[in-house]
Order: sequence, then C-alpha cells, then structure tokens
Amino acid sequence: MDSSISWREQLRIIVFQSDTPPGRRFDKILLVLILFSLLVAIIDSIEAVHRSYAAPLAWIEWTLTFIFAVEYLVRLYCSPKPLKYAFSFYGLIDLLAIVPGILAIYYSDAQYLLIVRVVRMLRIFRVLKLSPYLKQANYLLAALRGSKQKIIVFLATVSTLVTVFGTLMYVVEGPEHGFTSIPKGIYWAIVTLTTVGFGDIVPKTPIGQILSSLVMITGYSIIAVPTGIFTAELANAMRGDQLQHDCPVCAKNAHEPNAAFCSRCGNALFARSGSRDAPHPAQPDIST
Amino acid sequence: MDSSISWREQLRIIVFQSDTPPGRRFDKILLVLILFSLLVAIIDSIEAVHRSYAAPLAWIEWTLTFIFAVEYLVRLYCSPKPLKYAFSFYGLIDLLAIVPGILAIYYSDAQYLLIVRVVRMLRIFRVLKLSPYLKQANYLLAALRGSKQKIIVFLATVSTLVTVFGTLMYVVEGPEHGFTSIPKGIYWAIVTLTTVGFGDIVPKTPIGQILSSLVMITGYSIIAVPTGIFTAELANAMRGDQLQHDCPVCAKNAHEPNAAFCSRCGNALFARSGSRDAPHPAQPDIST
Amino acid sequence: MDSSISWREQLRIIVFQSDTPPGRRFDKILLVLILFSLLVAIIDSIEAVHRSYAAPLAWIEWTLTFIFAVEYLVRLYCSPKPLKYAFSFYGLIDLLAIVPGILAIYYSDAQYLLIVRVVRMLRIFRVLKLSPYLKQANYLLAALRGSKQKIIVFLATVSTLVTVFGTLMYVVEGPEHGFTSIPKGIYWAIVTLTTVGFGDIVPKTPIGQILSSLVMITGYSIIAVPTGIFTAELANAMRGDQLQHDCPVCAKNAHEPNAAFCSRCGNALFARSGSRDAPHPAQPDIST
Amino acid sequence: MDSSISWREQLRIIVFQSDTPPGRRFDKILLVLILFSLLVAIIDSIEAVHRSYAAPLAWIEWTLTFIFAVEYLVRLYCSPKPLKYAFSFYGLIDLLAIVPGILAIYYSDAQYLLIVRVVRMLRIFRVLKLSPYLKQANYLLAALRGSKQKIIVFLATVSTLVTVFGTLMYVVEGPEHGFTSIPKGIYWAIVTLTTVGFGDIVPKTPIGQILSSLVMITGYSIIAVPTGIFTAELANAMRGDQLQHDCPVCAKNAHEPNAAFCSRCGNALFARSGSRDAPHPAQPDIST
Repeated sequence: MDSSISWREQLRIIVFQSDTPPGRRFDKILLVLILFSLLVAIIDSIEAVHRSYAAPLAWIEWTLTFIFAVEYLVRLYCSPKPLKYAFSFYGLIDLLAIVPGILAIYYSDAQYLLIVRVVRMLRIFRVLKLSPYLKQANYLLAALRGSKQKIIVFLATVSTLVTVFGTLMYVVEGPEHGFTSIPKGIYWAIVTLTTVGFGDIVPKTPIGQILSSLVMITGYSIIAVPTGIFTAELANAMRGDQLQHDCPVCAKNAHEPNAAFCSRCGNALFARSGSRDAPHPAQPDIST
Repeated sequence: MDSSISWREQLRIIVFQSDTPPGRRFDKILLVLILFSLLVAIIDSIEAVHRSYAAPLAWIEWTLTFIFAVEYLVRLYCSPKPLKYAFSFYGLIDLLAIVPGILAIYYSDAQYLLIVRVVRMLRIFRVLKLSPYLKQANYLLAALRGSKQKIIVFLATVSTLVTVFGTLMYVVEGPEHGFTSIPKGIYWAIVTLTTVGFGDIVPKTPIGQILSSLVMITGYSIIAVPTGIFTAELANAMRGDQLQHDCPVCAKNAHEPNAAFCSRCGNALFARSGSRDAPHPAQPDIST
Repeated sequence: MDSSISWREQLRIIVFQSDTPPGRRFDKILLVLILFSLLVAIIDSIEAVHRSYAAPLAWIEWTLTFIFAVEYLVRLYCSPKPLKYAFSFYGLIDLLAIVPGILAIYYSDAQYLLIVRVVRMLRIFRVLKLSPYLKQANYLLAALRGSKQKIIVFLATVSTLVTVFGTLMYVVEGPEHGFTSIPKGIYWAIVTLTTVGFGDIVPKTPIGQILSSLVMITGYSIIAVPTGIFTAELANAMRGDQLQHDCPVCAKNAHEPNAAFCSRCGNALFARSGSRDAPHPAQPDIST
Repeated sequence: MDSSISWREQLRIIVFQSDTPPGRRFDKILLVLILFSLLVAIIDSIEAVHRSYAAPLAWIEWTLTFIFAVEYLVRLYCSPKPLKYAFSFYGLIDLLAIVPGILAIYYSDAQYLLIVRVVRMLRIFRVLKLSPYLKQANYLLAALRGSKQKIIVFLATVSTLVTVFGTLMYVVEGPEHGFTSIPKGIYWAIVTLTTVGFGDIVPKTPIGQILSSLVMITGYSIIAVPTGIFTAELANAMRGDQLQHDCPVCAKNAHEPNAAFCSRCGNALFARSGSRDAPHPAQPDIST
C-alpha cells in the first residue's frame, strides 16, 4: 500500500471494502467469527450442554463480544461519517451484536438476549453483499418485485379463505373438538390450507371433514398461483435480453429477438446480397 | 360540487362511486368499519374474552349494526333503481350484514350468526373493486378462466383417484385401524394426496403402507399439473401486453408495444399518406 | 330414424355412439345410474347406515345390477363383433360391473366386492370420452407423455433417495423409536420426502432429526422437478402453433412464429412494396 | 469375436463396455443381482423374517458376496490400469460391495453393515449409465447446474429463516411445549416451513401460533422459488434443441432444426458455390 495513504484510510479500505485482498481476508475472518458466535448461541441453548459447559461458553461469548466491540469502534473511527454509519442499518446491527454480551454480565438468565445474539446472523449478509451470488439474488428479487402486487392479491384471497373456513369450522366442530375460538379455527385453516397438517386439531364430525377436504383441495390447487406468478416473472427477468443491434437507419438498438426489419422505421436490420425480389428459376421445388 | 346536482345525486356519488375524493374517503371509512366489525366478531369468539367483555363487545356490535343499517337505507334511498340494488349480489350482502345484530337481540346464544357476521368480510371486495390491485387480480382471473376446463379435468381425475384409493384402504385396513367407512377412507385419501397428512388416521398394515406410499408419490407428482396449467396460462395472459394489431400485409398480430412497422415484413402497421403506402394491387389478401 | 336401418343397428347407434340425440340421452342416463350406484356403495359402507337400511340398499343394488346386466346383454347383442367387445377393456369393465350384485346373493359379507363395485366408476370415462373436455385432457396427456422419460428418471432418483434415507434412519433411530425395519424406514422416508408428514413415526435422536431435516429440505426442493418438467412440456404442447403460411417459392408451410423469410429457400414470405434497399431521404433520424 | 483379440481384452469388453450384446447381457445380469441383494438386505431387516429365515438369507448374502468378489477380481484383472480402477469412484463402490459379506462372518450383529449393503445400490447407476434415459437425466442435470447459484441463494435464505424462526419459537414457547433448545426450534421450523408438519412439536401459545402461521404461509409461498428457477432453466435447456449456428451475416445463432437460410436476414446459413454466396465486400462484420 502507498505510504501516502493515511493509517485511518488504510483501515477503512480493509474494514469497509471487499475488493482488495486484505479487505477480502478481513471479511472472511469476520464471517467465520459470526458463524462461530451463532453456533455458540445455538448449542448453549441445549440444556445438557449449558449445564456442563456454562463457564467456557460464557468465556467464548465474552471474547467474541470483545472482538465485535473492537470491530465496532474501529468502524466508527475510520468511517468518513461516523454518525451516519452509527445510525445506518448495518451500524445498528453491529451495535446490537455487542449488546447481549455486555448485558449478560448483569443478567445471568437472559433468555431473550438469545434473539439478539441470533440477530448477529444478519451481519452475514453484509459480508455476502459482494459475492458472485449477488447477481443471482438480484434476479430473484427482481422477479419478486415484479410479482409483488399479484402476490398481495393472492395473500388477500388466502386471508379471506382462512377467515371464512376458520369461522365455519369453529361453528361446525365447536370447542369440544379443539376449535375453541375463531382465531384457533383460522390457525387450523392456515395449517390445513398450506398443506402443513400438524394434526394437533383435526375435524371429527362428517360435515367438518367435508369442509376440511374442500380446504385441502383448495390449498393443493392454489399453490399453483404463487408458483405460476413467480415462474412467469422469473422467466421474464431472465429472458429480458432483446436483440442488441443498431438499426443502420434510425439507430434504434433493441429489437424483438428475431426481428428482420427495424420495427420503427421498417428498414432491413442486416444488409442482404442479391436482387431479392427477382424470381429464382434455379430454385428447386421443395415441398414439406 | 355543483349546486345544480341534487342532494340525492350527491349522496349517490359518494356512496356508490369511488373516483371522487369524497367517494374514496367514504370507501376508506367503510373498509375500516368492516375490518373492525370482523375483528370484534373474531375476538368475541374467544371464551375468556367473551366472559370478561361480553357487554362492551355487544354494544360495539349494536353500534356497527346501526351504522351498517343506516348505510343500507342510504344506499336504497339514493340508488337510481332501489329494487335492482336490493336484489343484486352486493345488495343482499349489505342486507345480510345488518341481520345478525338485529337477530342477536332475540337470540342471546346465536353461534350460527357468527358466520353471517364473517360474511360481512365479502363487502371488502366491493371497496377493493377500484384499487390498483384490480388489474393484477384480473391477470390471475384471466389465467384461471383460461385453465378452467383443464382444472376440471384435473379435479375429476383427483376425485376418481381418492375414491378408488379410499375404497382400497377401507378394504385393506378396515375399521380397526380407523378406516370405519368408505367416506372416511376418501377423507384419508384426500388428506394424504394433498400432502396435508394430519396423522389422525394412518395405515398400520404393510399393504396399507405400500398403498399409502403410492398415494403420496402420486400426490407429490401430480401437484405439477395445476401448477403447470396455471403457469402456462398466466405466461400467456402476461405476454398479452404486446401490441395487438393485424399487420395489413402479413397478418402478424403481436408486435412490440411501440412498433410502427411490422417486424416481419417491414410494411407500415398503420396507414399513412405517401409513396410507401400506395395501394398494392399485386398484394394477395392473406388472412390468418 | 330411417326405417331401412334395422332395429339392431338403431340400438347400436344409441348404445355405442354419442353423436346422436338418443345416444347422448342414453349416455346421460347411464352416467346418472353409475354415479348413483357408486354413491349407494359408498354410503352402504357406513356402519350406522348399513345397520338401519341394509334391506333397501341391497334392493337398490340388485335393481342396478339387473339394469347393468340388461345393458351388457344389449351391448353384446347389437355389437357388430360381440366377442371382440366382450374381451375389450370396456367390455370387461361392463361385465365386472354386474358381477358383485350376483355374487352378493351368495356371500352376504362380501366386503371385497366393494372394490369391484367402485370399479364401476371407470365406466364413467367411457361416457366422458366424447365430451368437450376431451381436448383439454389430451393437452394434459400429451404433456405427460412428452415428459414420461424425465418423470421415470425423477421417480428412480426419488426411489434411490428414500431407500438410502430409510436405511440410514433405521440404523440411526432403531426399532425403539418406531423404525422397526428398513421397509418401515422407507415408508417414513416417503411420508417425509413427499411433505405429507403423518407424524406416526418421528425421529427422536438428534442425528435422526438432522437427517430428517435433510430429507425434508430435499423433498421441498425437488418438488420443483416434476413441476418444471410438466410446465415446460405443457407450454410446448400449447404453443405448438407455428406460423402456417405457404412459402410462395418452395411451399414450405410451417415457419418460426415471426419469420420474415422462408428458412429453407431464403425468399421473402410476404411480398413487400417499394424499392426496399434504396435509401429513404425522407426518413427522419429517430434515435432511441 | 475375432480370435486375434486376447481373452483378457474380450473380458474387458464384456465387463466394462455396454455397446456389445455380451456386454449388455452382463450388465443386465449384474443389475438383477444388485437389486436382488438389495431386496435381501431390506427384507432381512424385518424382525419376523430375520428370526425365521436367518440361515437361508445369510447363505444368499454370502453367495452374492462371492459373486461380487469374483466380479471385482475380474475387473481388476482385465482393466488396462488396475490401480486407477481400484481407486476410482466405482472401483471403491465395487470394493465396498463385497466388504459387508466378509465382515459379517466375524461380526454376527452387524447392523451398521446394512448401510454398506444398501450402498451397493449406487452400482445401479453404473449399469444405467448407457441407457436411453441418460439423455433425459442430462436435461435435468443441465437445468440443475444452470440454477445452482440461484438454488444456493434460496437455501441460504431458507437457512436464515429457519434459524431466526426457530430461535423465536424457542424463546416464545419454551421447553414446556417441546421447544427444549434452539436446535429443536430449528428442526421444528424446518418441519413447518417445508410443509411436512409431523405434529410431534406444535405451538401452544397464541403468539407461537401466530408465528407458526407466518412460517407456514412463508413456506407455502416460497416453494414457488425453486420451482420457478428450475422451470425457467429447464425450458431453456429444452429449447436448446434448436440449430446452434451463427448466421454469417447477422449472427442470429438459434434456428429451426432443418433451416438452410437464416430466418432473420435471408442469407444462406452455410456457404455454397453460386452467385448467392459471392463475397459481399460491402457487408459489415457484425459480431454478437
């Protein structure tokens, strides 16, 4: 690195950018640390593990919290606009990542802190942001964005269906078969319509079973709707590539994939040899 | 508003139309009231809530019923053809929306009225009718309508499958394993074929489990059918956005949205004065 | 009907053909009778119904068997080749339809006859053969036939997966958790891979649950495969329509949907006016 | 066979190649033996069968092991590069296929050997390698390979979702409702998101049921993503059957399978003697 670049600037490149070898190395180390801290949080939640290894796991957690705290301070230090960073989405996530370790010193039984510890996972996306997978994710997001309104219409229809069916089942089956209220009925309708089928609440009366069959077949059929929407949009997003060729006359440069003439000015897109309208006597008579 | 428009006419515009600011505001208030009444009906069905807050909830329900009754009378008053409105689909739904509140005065334990209270939800669709989502819903409906016959063939096949498999399972497993009758067997076959799998009735005999495996793999595979049908139709419906105009020469009828000339034969799509559009006596009349 | 047509010939037209009004009427009556006999068989299997209405239901069954027997004899009588009919697919189904009623006279407790009674349902397809839905069914069948080999490859992969996973789970979980043998393990793997998830056998050990998660995510993802296969084939079957236009020179009459020139002989498919290669001075310079 | 081909060479052709009648016959016999050994392993795991037929099944297993051992030695003997074969994928699978039978002599209770016995199944793919289904499998593999990156993005999103939802459910429901640890919560989230829904762990608290509904609807909707990805890629892979040849003039590179001229610019796709293919000095060199 050029010595004319300040120490702070060099830090900034390593910490915030991913297109230099040290930046990439930093990102990789960070990724490993985040995944490791996630793993620690997950296995710490297992009763048997927590009882036997509470001390070493807490020690690892404190160490990781210390490292993340240092990282946060470094980011604050070398960011060109520290305040803007501190209140950005990733800045808040970074801050959140060090809070649980500090709070855990005071509250020994901090189960709710677990959620915050798992939220650290979101930091992975910052690291992944510049990976080759980004382009693929963009295709998927474009397809999702393109189908947003259709998806909302679909979800509204599904909501109406589960409300109506949930109410019907509550009235038909009643509390004695587990349908203790309309919200419970709606929960059952969602479980059934999405074809999950836990089986914790099941219809017992013949009418309830007929209604259930209706819900199930509906759910089984309308799964086609989000799939159809998404497939059609994704095919669009992937196809997108029109013929890129400047029309020799009007310079329009995007055409139907197999256009022969410019659709705006009517001139041939590609020059052709020979007197094209003259009859070709030598042409053999080929019949399909 | 112009004072030359009668009071009744002004009311009609607010109540029945959604393309003026007061009409939109009216629709929004109505939407909130409907959703609120739905919410009240739903939480009222929870035993604990009903026991503690029966009085205030009943009071809310009566108030809402009164508002809906007023709305219904206003609609009757300002509709140009009151009778036609009264017997239209939405007219009946609107009437239905005020019935349960009135009946509830006489029947305190009117569980079946709940269904009617939830039917109010259908009124939401009247309000949504003019939203920007309507176009998207139309795409979906067009795709569904286009695939109607194929869907019926599919459902007929599914019906045959569940009847045959339900009977087979009834014979193979018998009442001692929960398959107490053919309808029960058909119910089980629907639960299994749609991959819901409640687990309230499960095969116990080896032959029953082999048959079940068959049903499951069939269900898992043929879900491809409605999806394929709907996707293909939706892709058609969405492609439809091309310029639909028969080329006067070659009859190609789908073009880029802003094409001026046919991309196949290079002729102008729309007649224009000048030498290019001189009548072509030699032109054969080709119609698709 | 023409009196010159023999009585037997007239009967044949009514019984075997569906394109005359009497033939259609005969088919409709038959359809109703078949569905009615199916319904009787189904509700007869309900214990409570059977106990109360055994006599009238048996009487109905005998009557229907008698009608189907008469129909079978008429078909034999008026068929041009009675033997060929008797051993054809539908001939055997027709015979099977009258067997259970006759056998039931001797065996009062003939539960297995139920299957035969339900097999009558297959006769519905004969009646439906000429309905307007046939064309749609053909689209679906064409798509299925086109994807047959791919579906076999898919099913072979699924079979391998469930065998391997079933064995692994049998070894990992063992008989004490319900995985009493490899066939049971395979049954569980099918239940899980197809996302049915009865819940009659569930993994209890951590390794078993990790393996299960793998099976579930595999099942959830590869459902895309039959769907993709079928959708692609159906889109092909529905698109199928190429541009139908005789090339003026070589008479090839099927082209890419928006071809401008015959792809075999290179001549313009549609005549075009004007000197096409001459520069157009009047052409405005339109830039995109 | 030519006598000039050595005995070892003749063996090699039979054993390693599938394009001669004896080679095909050898493959078929091998396929039957593998499937038979698989079947024996599977039914041997059924407790009742094992108790009654332990001796004959063990005898069959030893015979099959002996045959596979002979086959392995023959392959080693006639392979041109025995060491390379021994350490190739199929070489190791072939070796693994004979290990369990030998080990079973010393360890009578070798349940873990079962897995190795089932691994023999993988040898089927060697036999299938040259079947007509290979081309179809290649289509599917091409589509999977094309969508690999998108599938990874999808699986990463699913992993994040199940981790976050699993943790939330662990915190909300707690050990008293079966969510004894975060891994258990993640297992539940996978069961629910994939719509399997065993029902061994179900939410009991209202908040837990609301969260579950969210997971279910998410799972029900995002199944559209792998399906959309795969369908779009498969449609691409299947369309690929067009003639791939760059038009020398306009560079259009996909044509009807039997095209002779470019359907876009009308020039001959393949050079030919004659006036039509005279060099075009004015032709600009356009490359895509």
